[in-house]
Amino acid sequence: MTPLPRIAITMGDPAGVGPEICLHLLNHAELARECVPIVFGDVGVLQRVAQQTGIPFQAAVISRAEWPTLHSTLTKPSVLNLQVIQADTVKPGQVSAACGEAAFQYVIASIEAGIAGEVAAVSTAPLNKEALHAAGHFYPGHTEIYAERMNAEHSCMTFFSEVMICSLVTVHIGYQDVVPALTQERILEVIELTAAAVHRVKGKLPRMAVCGLNPHAGEHGLFGRGEEEKIILPAIEIARQRGHQIEGPLPPDTAFIASKRPTVDAYICQYHDQALIPLKALAFDTAVNTTLGLPVPRTSVDHGTAFDIAWQGIANPSSLFAAVRLAVKLAQ
Amino acid sequence: MTPLPRIAITMGDPAGVGPEICLHLLNHAELARECVPIVFGDVGVLQRVAQQTGIPFQAAVISRAEWPTLHSTLTKPSVLNLQVIQADTVKPGQVSAACGEAAFQYVIASIEAGIAGEVAAVSTAPLNKEALHAAGHFYPGHTEIYAERMNAEHSCMTFFSEVMICSLVTVHIGYQDVVPALTQERILEVIELTAAAVHRVKGKLPRMAVCGLNPHAGEHGLFGRGEEEKIILPAIEIARQRGHQIEGPLPPDTAFIASKRPTVDAYICQYHDQALIPLKALAFDTAVNTTLGLPVPRTSVDHGTAFDIAWQGIANPSSLFAAVRLAVKLAQ
Repeated sequence: MTPLPRIAITMGDPAGVGPEICLHLLNHAELARECVPIVFGDVGVLQRVAQQTGIPFQAAVISRAEWPTLHSTLTKPSVLNLQVIQADTVKPGQVSAACGEAAFQYVIASIEAGIAGEVAAVSTAPLNKEALHAAGHFYPGHTEIYAERMNAEHSCMTFFSEVMICSLVTVHIGYQDVVPALTQERILEVIELTAAAVHRVKGKLPRMAVCGLNPHAGEHGLFGRGEEEKIILPAIEIARQRGHQIEGPLPPDTAFIASKRPTVDAYICQYHDQALIPLKALAFDTAVNTTLGLPVPRTSVDHGTAFDIAWQGIANPSSLFAAVRLAVKLAQ
Repeated sequence: MTPLPRIAITMGDPAGVGPEICLHLLNHAELARECVPIVFGDVGVLQRVAQQTGIPFQAAVISRAEWPTLHSTLTKPSVLNLQVIQADTVKPGQVSAACGEAAFQYVIASIEAGIAGEVAAVSTAPLNKEALHAAGHFYPGHTEIYAERMNAEHSCMTFFSEVMICSLVTVHIGYQDVVPALTQERILEVIELTAAAVHRVKGKLPRMAVCGLNPHAGEHGLFGRGEEEKIILPAIEIARQRGHQIEGPLPPDTAFIASKRPTVDAYICQYHDQALIPLKALAFDTAVNTTLGLPVPRTSVDHGTAFDIAWQGIANPSSLFAAVRLAVKLAQ
C-alpha cells in the first residue's frame, strides 16, 4: 500500500476560527483514512481553544526540531508545534500584529515543507489581512505569498465547487488594468494549469469553456476592441491543437446559465468578478480556493477569520474539510 | 372605475415565435381584466399561425385608419392590423429582410402611439437582429430604437425578476469603453429612474445597492484607479441627500450572494456583464427587460425569436405575460 499523503494545514490567525476548525479536522476519523493531516500552528493555542470550546484535542505533537527526522514517520493526524505565539496573549476576535505574524510564520513553514517535498499539499485556514499588514507583511492574501515564496513561474487561482470550477486569468488588479494583463501566453498558461488539475480531480480530460471579455463576447466586433479575436481566440486555437477540448470565447452573460453549467468542467475567466460574481451568487461559502502551479498544490477555506464567532466552538469546519479533501486529490 | 390601461404589444418578427405568443396573450382571460392588450402586427400572419398551431384567434381587429378615432374605445384584447407584410410570403423560422422590416414597423407604430399617449405602455415580442439589419435598420436591439425614436433624454435598461432587479449604468459598449462612460451624472440618472420605477412596481421606496467597478470595490484604493471614490461614491452621497435609501459601492462579487439579495430591492450595476452574469445565472428566461425614462414604459420578453420552434405552437408565452404584467404596473 502507498502511504497516505501528508497534508500541511496552516492554523490561520490564532484569534480567528482557524484553531477550532483545525481541532475538528484533527478529530475527523474519515479524513484520517485519506491523508495524514498535520496542523502547522501553536499547540498552546489549540489547547486553550480546546478547553474553551470543549472540542477534544488528542493529536500527536512534534516540535520544529523533531520535524526533519520524524515527518516521514507520521501516519496519524498531528500538530507541528511552531511555537510562534504565547497562547495566553491571544485575544480571541481581535486584530493584532502578533497574531498576524504567527499566521504568516505558519504559512512560511508550510512553504518550506512543500518545497522540501515533506508534505504533498497545503491547505490554509483563514488569516486576517489587517493583522498580516500590521505585522509588516503586505500581501493581498495567501495566493500571493505562496506564489512569491515558492518562486512559482506560472500559477493561477482556481475555484472548485459543486456548481462550477473556474480559473482566473487576472485576479487582484483594477478594472482598467485587466486588458494590459491579458496575453495569449497567460491565457494558455491558465488553460494548461486548469486542464492538468481538473484532470487529476475528475479523472478525465476536462471540457473547458473560455469566457470573452466584452458584452456578448464582442458580438463579431460590434463591441470592444477585438480582444476576443486578437488575444483570446488565438490562445483557444493553440490549446485545441494541443488536444484540449475547449470552447469559446463565450458571451460571459450566458456562459453560467443553469443549462450550460453541466456541460462545462472548467471555466477560464478573464477577470476577478467575471468568475467570482457567478461563483458566489450560486455557491457562496462552499467553494474551495486553490493555487495551481506551485511545487505543491495549495487549497484554502472559502471564508475569513470570522472574528465575531471565534473561539466559541460554533464555527463550521466543512469548508476546511472540503479544502483538505481537494488537496488530497490534487496531490495524487 | 378607471378604465383599464391600453398596452401595445409589438408582434415581433413574423417568422419567429412572436405571433403565437401574441395569440396566447389575446386569449388570456385574467390579463384581460388587468389591461387592454393591443397587438401591433399583421392579422394575416396571426390567422395563418392560428390555423397552423390550432391556437384560437378571436380578438377584435381594427385598421390603421380606424385607430385614431377608435383606440380610446377599446376595452377588450384587440389587434391593430398594420398590414406591413403578406402573410403567405412569410417562411417560418427564416431570416428575411421583409420580416425584419415588418418587425421594425410594428415597433415604430408602437412608438408613435406611445408618444401620442394612445397607449400607456409597450411590451415587445422578440425581433431578429439579423433580419432587422437586413432590412437596413442598424440598431443593436429594441432598447436603442425606443430610446432614439422616442427622443429619450435619459433612459436606462432595467431587468425585473423574482431573484433580483438591476439597472445598468452602461450597456452595449466594450469593456474598455466603460470607464469613460461612467460619470456621476449618469449614475445618478440611473438611480433616479430605477427608484421611481421600483417604487411604482413595489409600492414603496426601494432599498438600492450600487456596485463598485473594481474587485472588492477597489479595497480602499488597493486596486483600480479610485473610480469608486471619485465617481461612484459622490453619486451615492447625492442620492442619499435626496432621500434615497442606498448603499455602496459594494464589492461586486459578494453583492449578489443568496443572503444579500433579499435585502436589496434594486441593484445599480456599472456594466453589462456585472448585471447580466448574476441575473442569467440565477434567473435565466424569467426576467423582464425594461427601458425606463421613455414617454411610456417599455418592457420586453427575455427570449429571442426561437426560429427553431416557430409556428409549432410549443413556444412558452409566460415571458410575454410577465412583460405585459410589469408594463401595467409601470404604467400606473
